[in-house]
Parts: sequence; structure tokens; C-alpha cells
Amino acid sequence: MSFPKLDSKVFQNLKDVAHKLRIHSITSTQAAKSGHPTSCASLAEIMTVLFFQQMRLNLKHPRDPSSDRLVLSKGHAAPILYAVWAEAGLFPVEELRNLRLRSDSDLEGQGTAVAAGMAYVGKYLDKADYRTYVILSDGECAEGAVWESLHFAGHYCLDNLCVIFDINKLMCSDASAEMEVYRERLDAFGFNALVLNGHDIDELVKGFHNAASTKGKPTALLARTVKGKDFVGIEGLDEMYGQPLGKRAEAVIKNLQMMISNPNVHLTPKKIGKCGNAPEVNINNILLCNPPNYRLGDSVATRLAYGTALAKIAADNARVIALDGDTKNSTYADKMRNAFPERFIECFIAQQNLVGVAVGATCRRRTVAFVSTHATFFTRAFDQIRMGAISNTNVNFVGSHCGCSIGEDGPSQMGLEDIAMFRSIPGSTVFYPTDAVSTERAVELAANTKGVCFIRTTYPNTTVIYNNDEVFAVGLGKVVRQKPSDEVLLIGAGVTLYECLAAAERLEEDCITARVIDPFTVKPLDVRLIVKHGKLCGGRIVVVEDHYQQGGLGEAVLSALADSRNFVVKHLYVPTVPRSGPPAVLMDMFGISSRSIFKASLAIMKK
Amino acid sequence: MSFPKLDSKVFQNLKDVAHKLRIHSITSTQAAKSGHPTSCASLAEIMTVLFFQQMRLNLKHPRDPSSDRLVLSKGHAAPILYAVWAEAGLFPVEELRNLRLRSDSDLEGQGTAVAAGMAYVGKYLDKADYRTYVILSDGECAEGAVWESLHFAGHYCLDNLCVIFDINKLMCSDASAEMEVYRERLDAFGFNALVLNGHDIDELVKGFHNAASTKGKPTALLARTVKGKDFVGIEGLDEMYGQPLGKRAEAVIKNLQMMISNPNVHLTPKKIGKCGNAPEVNINNILLCNPPNYRLGDSVATRLAYGTALAKIAADNARVIALDGDTKNSTYADKMRNAFPERFIECFIAQQNLVGVAVGATCRRRTVAFVSTHATFFTRAFDQIRMGAISNTNVNFVGSHCGCSIGEDGPSQMGLEDIAMFRSIPGSTVFYPTDAVSTERAVELAANTKGVCFIRTTYPNTTVIYNNDEVFAVGLGKVVRQKPSDEVLLIGAGVTLYECLAAAERLEEDCITARVIDPFTVKPLDVRLIVKHGKLCGGRIVVVEDHYQQGGLGEAVLSALADSRNFVVKHLYVPTVPRSGPPAVLMDMFGISSRSIFKASLAIMKK
Repeated sequence: MSFPKLDSKVFQNLKDVAHKLRIHSITSTQAAKSGHPTSCASLAEIMTVLFFQQMRLNLKHPRDPSSDRLVLSKGHAAPILYAVWAEAGLFPVEELRNLRLRSDSDLEGQGTAVAAGMAYVGKYLDKADYRTYVILSDGECAEGAVWESLHFAGHYCLDNLCVIFDINKLMCSDASAEMEVYRERLDAFGFNALVLNGHDIDELVKGFHNAASTKGKPTALLARTVKGKDFVGIEGLDEMYGQPLGKRAEAVIKNLQMMISNPNVHLTPKKIGKCGNAPEVNINNILLCNPPNYRLGDSVATRLAYGTALAKIAADNARVIALDGDTKNSTYADKMRNAFPERFIECFIAQQNLVGVAVGATCRRRTVAFVSTHATFFTRAFDQIRMGAISNTNVNFVGSHCGCSIGEDGPSQMGLEDIAMFRSIPGSTVFYPTDAVSTERAVELAANTKGVCFIRTTYPNTTVIYNNDEVFAVGLGKVVRQKPSDEVLLIGAGVTLYECLAAAERLEEDCITARVIDPFTVKPLDVRLIVKHGKLCGGRIVVVEDHYQQGGLGEAVLSALADSRNFVVKHLYVPTVPRSGPPAVLMDMFGISSRSIFKASLAIMKK
Repeated sequence: MSFPKLDSKVFQNLKDVAHKLRIHSITSTQAAKSGHPTSCASLAEIMTVLFFQQMRLNLKHPRDPSSDRLVLSKGHAAPILYAVWAEAGLFPVEELRNLRLRSDSDLEGQGTAVAAGMAYVGKYLDKADYRTYVILSDGECAEGAVWESLHFAGHYCLDNLCVIFDINKLMCSDASAEMEVYRERLDAFGFNALVLNGHDIDELVKGFHNAASTKGKPTALLARTVKGKDFVGIEGLDEMYGQPLGKRAEAVIKNLQMMISNPNVHLTPKKIGKCGNAPEVNINNILLCNPPNYRLGDSVATRLAYGTALAKIAADNARVIALDGDTKNSTYADKMRNAFPERFIECFIAQQNLVGVAVGATCRRRTVAFVSTHATFFTRAFDQIRMGAISNTNVNFVGSHCGCSIGEDGPSQMGLEDIAMFRSIPGSTVFYPTDAVSTERAVELAANTKGVCFIRTTYPNTTVIYNNDEVFAVGLGKVVRQKPSDEVLLIGAGVTLYECLAAAERLEEDCITARVIDPFTVKPLDVRLIVKHGKLCGGRIVVVEDHYQQGGLGEAVLSALADSRNFVVKHLYVPTVPRSGPPAVLMDMFGISSRSIFKASLAIMKK
């Protein structure tokens, strides 16, 4: 591909800015007494060309939906990102010394998925001109998550995506052979893969131009770089990895200053101009387009109600999207695919990428994403969910096939730790709706709730117990059965709520009346309601869940009661790895059926 | 590669057996009313050639260390594995109808790592002739975990490993182009990659022979197959996926029976013979070769004590191995690498494969494996750990860098959900040793404890509080400070135990004496000790941990007390995503320092 060489003045300016970024990276990590300046040095020319030659940005509105995106997956290099922001004029350069630089947004192996999610939205939903860049370190390439995302980007022909590999850890003596391995892998994963010298500004400019003009496939720039490049006496040395330069800083900075021909150079990024064509979107106040429409006593799986509700909120708001990992027939995400195929993203059996793409797709409030698969398969993406929460993501997760009540498919498919996992995510909201009506409302609420939301859906059919106009809210439970004489409080959710109701019937035959609470959300839990009714029931509580003992509904209830004396709680849970069998048989075998609740209630009456 | 064609009689026998396996797969899934017979049909020739032409097995001792290994990652095809076992004579064919066939060992995407672990041990530790095979479905190839493992296998030149891809879901019209994509990817990942027809017995025999004679790299057999192959009227149809044949079974079976020329054919697998050269090993009663050697008051990080203890048990038993994910300098697994480099496996930044390799390496009790990385990075492998537990694995996990007390590295590096995760693993043991002495004993105990073990180690130095001869046991906590007048019980572990001790000092100045317990193991928790001393302290308990609220030490304590009235618990934990800063500052800022414990103790005195 022919491309005119840069004007020599422009070239020199870019070189100068690259060295300034090097200096900033040193001074800011010196001030913070932590950070990886040598990792930053590898990226100096790449960052310079990206920001002052390539990317279109709106500096006044950094989150302008039309501006190009950059994901720094190589989090160690955060100081040079701050440096280039300062050079671009986002804030005064002097502040770099005061910033408490955090290298804590380290996305290792996750940035590619996030960038792919942004690029997917850009190409297929926004249909806009903005481009997405992501910078990876070579170490990250060992993460399988990276290959999931590269496959995804290739499969969906994301030609608006450019993945930059910062390769500074060449291991073997034959570096060009090693670069060729990278090239072959990327090529085999459907990329336009180019090897180049990451410190050569001309090559970089050419590479980015090639990326922007390649249609039908994403581009990978395999940039060969040197750790600590142009740090005199340090360049290429492993010993200086991962630490500020300390006493050696002064000499290195002096040397860099000598390499700069115009210390007053000041460049500005390209403006967005006519590329500013990302549509305005509004994702506030999303509603079910029609209210739930069931009859009391209907038998409907909550996973099916999820699919129904998803299609309903998607009808209400054009920025609702759904993602699934090759399980759409059983999560019922296929209801969305059937209704709005252009807003359904099939992510295959690759849950890490599935989650990362959703995090990317929701950035800059471009979409409201619902991600579904079997509840237990989210364990594969725990780190992606955790990091999403650290980055204040708003993704909604929906896990079907929870608990031993899925039956014949056996324990590998049973979500028995999903509540524990999602409860541990900071700021998360965990819905565990019992019937179809409450599930539809959970979906509607999740769409409007900040932070990570998780909705746990159930495999077998359950009976509709709420009227279509019942009002639900995050953190508000429901008392579903009560009498003034109640002596024990039963708490269940999903399948176990019905077991509580059946146990209450049976207890009444023995002249013991029991109150029953459906918590609706496990996090936040309706502490006030549980404490109040628990006290009214003599402080006797039986809580039962189709989940392991640890971290689920039971421990949430115990946490809610920690501060109060005079409660006694019997917790029923799945105590061990279940086996395969009919749902009712398994629930009884593992001690979470009405029979066990009945027995536990009798026992607790003596306390 | 030249290879003699099979004798026609042998060829016909193999063909007949393949059809018999098809019939068995149908009848057993009919009887179980669940299962995927069409997925089994793809594998009939592959299984037949593997078991009756290729693998060396000791049928009398199925776990003979010298026999070849087969990992069926494609769990959906379990019925044909049972069928071939029956045909090989492991149990009567008739039992296939009675077996409650479980398709629940579905390793999707994980089998390659397990097989790679077995192959690594075979090549580098056992130095034996046995070979390892793994069968993957094409759907699994979307999982990044697969590519982590393929990279590992290529990197370590595991030429004793043969990965069979059962490719029956070709998507595009040009199937041979799609097969070529697979071949290019495998080739780029360092494999000897062969494309073949998975239903052609001659090609399969040749392929396996090629695999066995290829040195220096693993082999991938990319087998193009057909779903429901030779099921008349069903072959290649998507609609029959994932279900027994029902009414169509009879006609299909009849047709298969007609294709069999000798219904009484009976084949036996190859014997091990002179390939039986895997060494005998003994992994019982592993001890520290020297007892802990510290002085009371020494300041030592428990992560360092882990490295020390690891090298000590490795000196005691030659089958102790260590695996790490490019974090050996900070987990101190490098102590093992320095002492016994041949028993240290570097798995790079690829945690899913790291865990899977360990699961494979410990199969058939070949090794005792310790897997270390930063505690929070295990979230990337939660599913691998979960599935390992379902398969009764005995791997030991060691997570360093727990909690906000790691300080400057920031929240992305802080393990704040690791206890929740490991507690939710069925049958797990969770150690949280406080000082160097107890850490060394935790390592020794873990080496001899069945199931998944997790040891949480601490980043900063902590003070040695136990004598070198102190005796520790799983499920036994320690009272580390007590007076008869104690009015509140403080429970802490790791860094927070010291905060409890400091708070107790300060409380004593206010004439309140506090008892302090170090639980040593969070799971099982020493319920008896906590209930007893809690009661002696007026039912007042403050529990403090460097972990989020959910699923950690606090909720474990609450679970232990659920059944008793008259306890009041104040739980101190990290309430939100921390920031970066000095450890002591962060612990105070997030409410888990002695100052917060002191305040909580004063408050609880009023309850």
C-alpha cells in the first residue's frame, strides 16, 4: 500500500513528543514511587502517533460518542497514557507529578474483548466512523481470553478495530522468527496482520493507514519494541522492570532532553469533524412495552419469562441488546434474536469474551446489555465481571439452569455458587425472582439499575403467584403468606419458595403456622422486612436455597441478622456435589424440599 | 509417512465394532431418556481405532500408571465412552442399559489442559512411554482455555500428546476451507496438524501412527465427521441434536445391524507390555523436611514462608511439584524453582490452563501439586477449580496478594473475593494462616489433605506469634489471647489478627478485656471453639477480615453461630472497591484496622 512519507518537520515533532512522553513517564512514576517507566518507554512512539496523527478526538468532551476509542489493556503502561492526555491538553502537564498514578486498571488479557465490544457497536449499531484501538502486551497473549476475542473480531469482520501488540519480551535468539509466529497466529485468526518496528514513526503511520483502509477484517499491528527504549544505560535491561528509575532518573531525563530538538513542541489531536456521526441515544427509564400478562396459577419457567421481558424492553428502547454464549435456546435469549436479530450478539462458547464484549458495548452509555448463559458458566468469566465492576460497568447478567433443580443434566451444568460469586461483586444487585411476573419486573429494574446486575432464572416451570400489577423494587421483599399466630419464618426464592409454601401447609396440619417471605433481591436484601417478621415469628427462621451453603441467600440472611440477638436460623442448602436425576428427587435427596423444611421447622420450634 | 494398509479382516472387524458402538449409544440413551446419540455417532470410528488399534491399556487395573490416557473433553459423547469400555470388557455390555448415564462430566474447553498436565508428567517426570489423547468438539474451540493449553503443549513440545478435534459442525459451504483454517491455527500454535476423515479407519490408523512417530511437537488430528453418521434418515440433521432417537431408534438400529458383517466380533485393546515403565510413586505422609525455624517476633511475609515450606516438602517427597502463572517472584514459588527446577512448571499468564494442567498432573495420584498466583487471579479459573472438585481432584492452590493490605498495586490486584470463591467449592479446605510458622504447617497439611485446598498468603510481613513446635490441624483454631474477664471475642486472620491484638491492647486501657481467636482454617471453621469462647465473652463477637463482606470469614462465623441464640456479631470487612495507597492507610480507610475494631468493640458492649 503506498503512503506518502511524513513531512520532515511533522516527523521531528512527533519524535520530540515521544521523548517528552518518556520524560513524563519517568517523572510521574518517580513522584508516585511506583510504576513501570520502562514499559511506558516501549509505547512512546505508538502513543504519539495514535494521539497526534491517527485518532480523532473531541478534547472538550472526552466521552463524545463519535471520538475514536483507545483501550489500554497493558495496564502497566498507564503512566504514558496519562502523559499523552496531558500533552494533548486534557489537563496541565504539571499535574502528572501530583497525580497519585494508579496502575490498578490492569485489564491483562481483557482489553481486547472490551475493544471488540466497542467496535461491534460502532460497526453494527452506531454504524458510525469512529475507530477502536487496543494495546496489548506480549505477556497477555498467553491468556486464552485474548484468543476468544481475536476470534470474535475476525468472525464479525470488525475492520474498525486495530489491535496493537507491544512485543518487547522476545524470548529466543531469533527475534524475527518469533515475530513471524505472532503473524501466523493472527493471520490464522482472520486478521490483517502486519509486523513493524514500534519505534519507527514512519512505519507506524503507514501501519495505521493500512489498518484504516483494510475492509472486511480487523488489523493487528505487531510492533517490535524495546523495554526502556532510549533510557540511556537501561534500554533492554530486565533488571529495571516494574520499578521507577530512582537515582538513575536524572541522567536518563537529561539524555532524553538532549534528544529533543524543539522542547516547546505542542501538537493537537485531529478533530472529529465530519466523522462525528454516532447517533444520540437515550437509555434512561426503560420499560416493559407491555406489562406482564399471566394468570395466577399459570406454570411458567422464569427463564422463559426472562426471554419475554427482554423482547419487551427491547421493543421499548432501541439500545437494548442481548448477548449469549451458544445457549440461547435454553436461556430463552432467542426470543430477542427472533424479535430483533440485529441487536442479538452470538458470542459462542467463550464466556470471557462474552462478558468483555458486553462491558465494551455498554461503554459511554451506548447500549443496555443483557448477557445470558447457564448460571454456572459465568464462573469462567468471574475475573471479567470483577474487573467490570472496578471500572463501574452497568452490564446485566442472567444465569439460567441454577441449582440441582435442573435435574438430569447433572452437576457440571448446575449453578450452585453463582449467588456467592455475584454477591461478592462490589455494588452488585442480585435478583432471584420466583415467578414469571416478578422476573419480568426484575428485567425491567435491572435495565435501569447501575452497576453489575445478576438475575438468577430457574429451569423448571414455577407457578405464577403475583398479580400482573404487583409492584416490585430493588431491596424490597414480599411476605407471601402470614397469620398473626405465625411461629416460624420461612425464606425461600425460586423453586424453594414453593417448597416453603408446601411446608407451611403441612405445618398447619400440625397446628404450627408459618410465615413465608420471598426476598426478590438477595442483594440488597430487605433487612428491615426480615428482621421485623423474624421477630414476630419468635426469632425462628428457616432459610432454604438451591445453592451451596457459602455466600448464598442463607449467609445473606445471617449477615442481615448479625447485629441482633435472639434469632435462631436453620439454613437448608445443597450440601455436596449433587448427582443427575429428576428435579424433585434431587431437591428432596439434597435436603431442600418441603419435607426437609417441615422437619427443620419442627426442630427450630424447640429453640 | 508410509504406513502399511490394514489387513482387510482387521479393517472389517473395526468397522463392525464402530457400528456396535453406535448401537450401544442409541440403546443406552434410549434407556436413560437423555443424552446425545448423534454426537456419539461422530466418534464411533475414532473411539474404535483408539481403543482397539492404538491405546495400550491394562484392563485389570484401569488406573495402571503405565496405560495410555484418554480425556473426553467432549462430555456430550460420554455414552460412546461407556460403550467402548463395555466392548473392551471393562463391564458387561448389558449394563449399558442399566447405567444411569451421566453426561455431567462435561469438561467443555477444559480437557486439553488436563490432558496436557498428564502428558507433561509423562514426558518430564515419569519419563515413561504412555501417551495421552484428548477428544474435543469443534464448539469447544471457541473457548480461550483451549488455546492456552494448545500453546502450553506446543511450548513444552509434548510429543506424547495427541489432540483429536471432532469437527462435525462445519458452518460454511466450503468445508475444506474451514478445515484449512483449523489446520493453520494449530500449525501456528506449534502442532503437527493433520486433516483427515474421522470416519475412515485407514486414515485414522495412519494419523495416530503419524502422531506417535512425530517427535518434538504434539499432534492435532483434525477429524472431519458427520453428526449422526450412519443413522439412516438422521445423518447430518441438526434437528435431532441433543436428544435420544425415540421412535426412530428401532429403524436406525436395524439398519446398523445390517451393516455389521460379524455380529459376534470381539476385539481387545493392546496390552501395555514393555511400555509399562511408569515409576511407582508414594505420595502419602508428606512432611516438611525441617520444622519451621523462626523466632517469636520475627517479621516474615507468609507468602515467603509458603515458598520456604514448598521447597521443604519437595525435599521430602520427589513427587511434589509447583506450578505458577508468571508470578513466581511474588508468590515465592521461585524458591521451588531454584531448589528443584525440574519440578517447577511455568504456565505463563494463562490461569485456566494453569489450573487444568495441575488437575491433570495429579491424576492417578502421580503428583502432589501446588499452584500459586495472586489470589484474585484464580477468579479466571473458577470454573476449572469447580470442575476439578466435581472430579475429586486433590490440587492445592496458594493465593498471594490478598486484600487491600497489598497496598499500592491497587484493586485490580487485590484478592477480596477469594475466600468466598474457595469456600463455595464442595469439599474444599481453606487455610488462612496468620504467621510464618502456621503457614509452613498449612502447606504440610494441605499436601496430605484430600480435595481442593486453598492457602491464602499475605503480602506484607507479619510477626511470628507461634513457636516452631506449635501443632496445627485442619479445623482447629487457636485462642491467642485470653483472660477470665473477657467480655468480647475478636476473630481475625492474617493481617487482621494483628489488628485484633492491637485493639485488645487498647481496649484493656479502657478496662475492657478481649479474647482473640485465630481460626487457622476458614473452612472447616472451628465451630466448637468459636461457640464456646463466644459464649464465655457474653455472646459478643467482632470478626474482621481483609475481604469483601460476602462469603468470607465473617459469613463463615455467622454460619457457625446460626443455630445458637444470644450471639451478636459485628462484622468488619472491606465495604467497597479500595483504592491504591500504603497498606496501613488502606486498612484504616476501609475500616479493618485496630481503630475500627476498637470502636466496634465499644459499640457491641452495649448489646
